[in-house]
Amino acid sequence: MGYRDEVESAFTHNVKQNNPDYKPIAVILSYFCNDFSSTTNHMSLITVGTMAFDAIETPFGKVDQIVGGSATYVAYSASQFVSPINQISIIGYDFPSEELEAMKKRDIHMEGVEVVPDKKSFFWSGKYHLDMNSRDTLVTDLNVLADFNPVVPESYQSSEFLMLGNLMPKLQMSVIDQMKTRPKLIVMDTMNFWMDVAMDDLKEVLKKVDVLLVNDAEARQLSGEISLVKAARIIMDMGPAFLIIKKGEHGALLFHKNHVFFAPALPLEEVFDPTGAGDTFAGGFIGHIAKTKDISFENMKRAIIVGSALASFCVEKFGPERLKEISKADIDARIQEFVQLVNFDIDLG
Amino acid sequence: MGYRDEVESAFTHNVKQNNPDYKPIAVILSYFCNDFSSTTNHMSLITVGTMAFDAIETPFGKVDQIVGGSATYVAYSASQFVSPINQISIIGYDFPSEELEAMKKRDIHMEGVEVVPDKKSFFWSGKYHLDMNSRDTLVTDLNVLADFNPVVPESYQSSEFLMLGNLMPKLQMSVIDQMKTRPKLIVMDTMNFWMDVAMDDLKEVLKKVDVLLVNDAEARQLSGEISLVKAARIIMDMGPAFLIIKKGEHGALLFHKNHVFFAPALPLEEVFDPTGAGDTFAGGFIGHIAKTKDISFENMKRAIIVGSALASFCVEKFGPERLKEISKADIDARIQEFVQLVNFDIDLG
Repeated sequence: MGYRDEVESAFTHNVKQNNPDYKPIAVILSYFCNDFSSTTNHMSLITVGTMAFDAIETPFGKVDQIVGGSATYVAYSASQFVSPINQISIIGYDFPSEELEAMKKRDIHMEGVEVVPDKKSFFWSGKYHLDMNSRDTLVTDLNVLADFNPVVPESYQSSEFLMLGNLMPKLQMSVIDQMKTRPKLIVMDTMNFWMDVAMDDLKEVLKKVDVLLVNDAEARQLSGEISLVKAARIIMDMGPAFLIIKKGEHGALLFHKNHVFFAPALPLEEVFDPTGAGDTFAGGFIGHIAKTKDISFENMKRAIIVGSALASFCVEKFGPERLKEISKADIDARIQEFVQLVNFDIDLG
Repeated sequence: MGYRDEVESAFTHNVKQNNPDYKPIAVILSYFCNDFSSTTNHMSLITVGTMAFDAIETPFGKVDQIVGGSATYVAYSASQFVSPINQISIIGYDFPSEELEAMKKRDIHMEGVEVVPDKKSFFWSGKYHLDMNSRDTLVTDLNVLADFNPVVPESYQSSEFLMLGNLMPKLQMSVIDQMKTRPKLIVMDTMNFWMDVAMDDLKEVLKKVDVLLVNDAEARQLSGEISLVKAARIIMDMGPAFLIIKKGEHGALLFHKNHVFFAPALPLEEVFDPTGAGDTFAGGFIGHIAKTKDISFENMKRAIIVGSALASFCVEKFGPERLKEISKADIDARIQEFVQLVNFDIDLG
């Protein structure tokens, strides 16, 4: 029990007895302990996805083996805002123990991460084209991923927020089914591959989630509509009340009922390695929401700006390295750049 | 001499004699006569470009002959904000007199439009692909355009603003050279074709203009840089203090020194015909600036939103038809949609 928990417990005990207008102490404390509360929410976040090795070639360089995977990027990104992160994944004997230690130091819990002693971790290799918007997959070695059967530990059951990283839809569904209490918000990522090979399963999961993340091509494939506005309506009819369409360097759109919000990507001088940018965006998005515990459309707008800011750091170096270096001040400064980028003041007179 | 001119003349005469802090009456009147001043600025705008026929095929329909041309779209768009528009172009015997009358009714002056009695107007034919982002040019009949030698009439010489539509760079330069007083702002459009066949001439014009409008591919071609941020720096070093990079459905970027502003395109349910959207954007941009007489970066942000709003109407019907129907209330409502689209409120705490 840390300092804050102790204060909270003692305070709550007293206040509850004397005050009919009792509010959870976390709300009050957050006014005084802003920095502290930003990393120590009582309720937590489950992230499900891959922890892997990547080999990446871009016009700016090449790495043969670097830590990657959707849940790795989501966790590093979300841990900037919320704690603990309850990780669910699978790794082989070769996943570096230093990386696991670095994640544990950020209060990323590993109880839900299965370690397979006689197999290698998932491996992906890709090469980016000159424009950095498209890439070719060179190698996909499933390794441990072929046997992945995610288990939600008892200690994760109180988690209020669930981030389903890109995975086989049946596995995403299995995680939802294992939750004893329905999370306050379920966010789901997916990709075109599952639309090609498991569309029916995918549609079943869609009925159970609140927010879907896809890119523009995937939104068109899933809906069969070229117009993104029409596509959004069709996809929201499939289940998710909120839809985020990621357009890479062209920003992201958030749809909800008949509302739409657009957040640009920051125009960057150099994009060094786009790998993980989408997962980092998702981590910043769910991290901000889990921190603020506010699932309104207005707050999701802010979460998209936060996610975009985190993604803009991710692409500055190979792998998740840059995400480990940045501070709250760095993130705030980057968010301020987004405000400047789109801020205008118009008087319709 | 209209009512406002009379008031202005009398007022100026009195005030100038008694007030050492004399300010042009237009500035003062604009506080009181907002609607009036929005369409009757004393100083005016020159637009140079083509007036043409187009044949267009899109996935939604086909027209064999419709009025088009860069100066047509710019003039219809800008005339929503400023008056008169001093048009410079060339047409053949076949250009419809009803169209000329409709333009004159909007105070679009035709003294600088040469009519060639024995030749046809410029003709362009194109077919859009399914995604509406790319098109094939099927026919380009220069006709009268082959002999175009723009002349700036004496009556246009007091114009404060100059919009150089996409034309052979030598012709754009000739218009600049004919101006006895350097306009307050020169905005220039161009295209990849001139970069292929007349790059040296184009670079000479760039030295003389304040704002350049290009699309993202053209910015890359002109600068030899893939990164738009780096491309912008290189292009601004060539002359223009402001650079607008249009990205079609992905919005537009405004660069100035080390500042950047991003305006999205409105996510539309249907894009019926994108022809003229870029010129309509340019017309709204320069129209707003000519109306407000404010060439600051802050006001250019507003001008980009106004241009984007006008462009979003243009694509709703074939040709410039939609631009003729819309009212100030329609435009204000559309601008309000842009405000909603990007508006967020973030507290860095």
